[in-house]
Amino acid sequence: MRLSDLPTPCLVLDRRVLARNLNVMAQVASYHGVALRPHMKTAKSIDVARMALALNPGAAAGGEQGGVTVSTLAEAEYFAGHGLSDMLYAVGITPQKLDQVAKLNTAGADIIVITDDATVASAIAAHPAPPRTLIEIDTGEHRGGLFPDDPMVLDIAARLGPNLVGVMTHGGHSYGARSVPEMRQTAEQERLGCVHAVSRLRAAGHPAPIVSIGSSPTARAATSMEGVTELRAGVYMFGDLFQAEIGTHGPDDIAVSVLTSVIGNRPSQRRLLVDAGAIALSKDRSTQATANDYGFGILADMQGRRSLGRSIVRTAYQEHGVVELDPQLGTFAPPIGTKFRVLPNHTCLTAAAHDRYFVIEDDSETVTAIWPRVNGW
Amino acid sequence: MRLSDLPTPCLVLDRRVLARNLNVMAQVASYHGVALRPHMKTAKSIDVARMALALNPGAAAGGEQGGVTVSTLAEAEYFAGHGLSDMLYAVGITPQKLDQVAKLNTAGADIIVITDDATVASAIAAHPAPPRTLIEIDTGEHRGGLFPDDPMVLDIAARLGPNLVGVMTHGGHSYGARSVPEMRQTAEQERLGCVHAVSRLRAAGHPAPIVSIGSSPTARAATSMEGVTELRAGVYMFGDLFQAEIGTHGPDDIAVSVLTSVIGNRPSQRRLLVDAGAIALSKDRSTQATANDYGFGILADMQGRRSLGRSIVRTAYQEHGVVELDPQLGTFAPPIGTKFRVLPNHTCLTAAAHDRYFVIEDDSETVTAIWPRVNGW
Repeated sequence: MRLSDLPTPCLVLDRRVLARNLNVMAQVASYHGVALRPHMKTAKSIDVARMALALNPGAAAGGEQGGVTVSTLAEAEYFAGHGLSDMLYAVGITPQKLDQVAKLNTAGADIIVITDDATVASAIAAHPAPPRTLIEIDTGEHRGGLFPDDPMVLDIAARLGPNLVGVMTHGGHSYGARSVPEMRQTAEQERLGCVHAVSRLRAAGHPAPIVSIGSSPTARAATSMEGVTELRAGVYMFGDLFQAEIGTHGPDDIAVSVLTSVIGNRPSQRRLLVDAGAIALSKDRSTQATANDYGFGILADMQGRRSLGRSIVRTAYQEHGVVELDPQLGTFAPPIGTKFRVLPNHTCLTAAAHDRYFVIEDDSETVTAIWPRVNGW
Repeated sequence: MRLSDLPTPCLVLDRRVLARNLNVMAQVASYHGVALRPHMKTAKSIDVARMALALNPGAAAGGEQGGVTVSTLAEAEYFAGHGLSDMLYAVGITPQKLDQVAKLNTAGADIIVITDDATVASAIAAHPAPPRTLIEIDTGEHRGGLFPDDPMVLDIAARLGPNLVGVMTHGGHSYGARSVPEMRQTAEQERLGCVHAVSRLRAAGHPAPIVSIGSSPTARAATSMEGVTELRAGVYMFGDLFQAEIGTHGPDDIAVSVLTSVIGNRPSQRRLLVDAGAIALSKDRSTQATANDYGFGILADMQGRRSLGRSIVRTAYQEHGVVELDPQLGTFAPPIGTKFRVLPNHTCLTAAAHDRYFVIEDDSETVTAIWPRVNGW
């Protein structure tokens, strides 16, 4: 099967680029001497998880495979079903969700949950099968978590008792950074905040062995991970136009694209209609906040190269994308049915609309595998 | 099962509101004496399609059930598998997709395709099992289609030969309208453009019996449908904040919402964290272009009422929504796990992330059915 045979729109994954991206982050973790706990929220695929975990020093030596991070309990159930055990569910747990976690853990998984709430901590401790728990720390993103010196940190720890295994934070405010020095500063905030919080816990007699930090930008930019035990990141695996814009990876490190067919053309207006619209691409407009606004994605050729200049999906209807062609292409009017690939703004959201990857290895356009994704909740 | 028992986030469908919305549009079609060909792109559900089709005068008399519109071939295959035959695939066909259409048609479906391209018309005519075809007319939206007096209309008709069955248009520019007179004008453009194009075809000897127009706003606003044979509309079934803002339906006619749980609260900042984020709600920001910007959706209570004032999902991370609470709620801090419902900006895109509906009938919060959706392509 070749890319040109596939029904469109569909999701294409270049395994070479993926492998390169996985290697870079594995080296980052190795350099800092911390474990890498890949966040599967972007890929949602056991095949990708296995590639990522195979790079762990432990796995390479035939030992422990290492843990992953998940963003939904659907992911946790799916990965548990494929034999993964050590998982961090990195979205604040609710008391109502504890039963599902306990069910998976009783069946062999070891899902760690997070909380920043005293009532939830009590519910965890009172549960018949309480999961291991991290306290979520706010190191500057101000989404979830407690500030490192909040008295509540010790209150929650006391309620959790032996279920407490450490702290975690997500330096998501790094996405607002536009330079390496800024990201480096955010990375240091992540580290210092978590290290401070865990030192308070340990001083109060809690073992709290895990200090988990991470975001794709801060992971790459950090100069020190002293006191940190593990790194979480997800979007680095696939990359996207936004990550390339903020310099988290290079412009040629985007592993995922949407294969699309031309379904209309108006040469006089220098535009194409393609069958990748708002569902296939998502309505994410991340690059609007960067120096280069790529609309809903940039058109690439079948080899994934940006050979069409600045040809952008300017408007996205449900199943129609309107491509504004680069003026340098003149009256370029590829026939209806011509295929292109669209590089996405935000790969996590674009991939979420698709239930599988068509995997390619190189420029030959040969599809070598089909990998399923676990969507939903 | 009750709403409060459901895992979150998930999609809730109020069957009463749906039935009311379906009735209104059935009455519109009946008033104008045209067939209603409901567009299933929003609901993607056989259960919803059956409710819509049951309102056809033909079906009520035990006769023909009437046709539907689809936006993907996945929908066509799904509905064909559930016994629907007459379907209009309202996205420009490519030569490569003709085999799949032919396969479904040979197995009993009768999928009509659309084109505005001469080469595609020739490919249709040359296909061993050519589908019935409509020529797409541009009546002002400028997305796809030929202008009504374009000479190419007759060229394409000649190429299609007996496969030509009429014309279609989508007055999607009605979404830019902000008043009934404006929508009425767009509706009249839709009608006049299509009637003009089909009169040219008929004068040239083509029977062209079908004149298919529609969009939810123009369908409601039209004063005349003379010369039109059928009406297509989809989002009217569920409604959303954007449709309510532009006056296509009332504020209480939104049938679909996302059930969500509180996963964090910061009373001092008057905000909540909920587990409906960018995937569960979509990143659609339609209401940004209206008088009331609802962010990524407005928070409603478990009965779907807007009893929380102007509490808006201001920021949407992948699995986290940040709700800015209405200042009038003071230091309202519902415990972690409290459930709310979020009314969506754009129901087509919000629903696309979910694989099923949890159906309720009234304010009792009892879930009376689970209806699957057909996503993907």
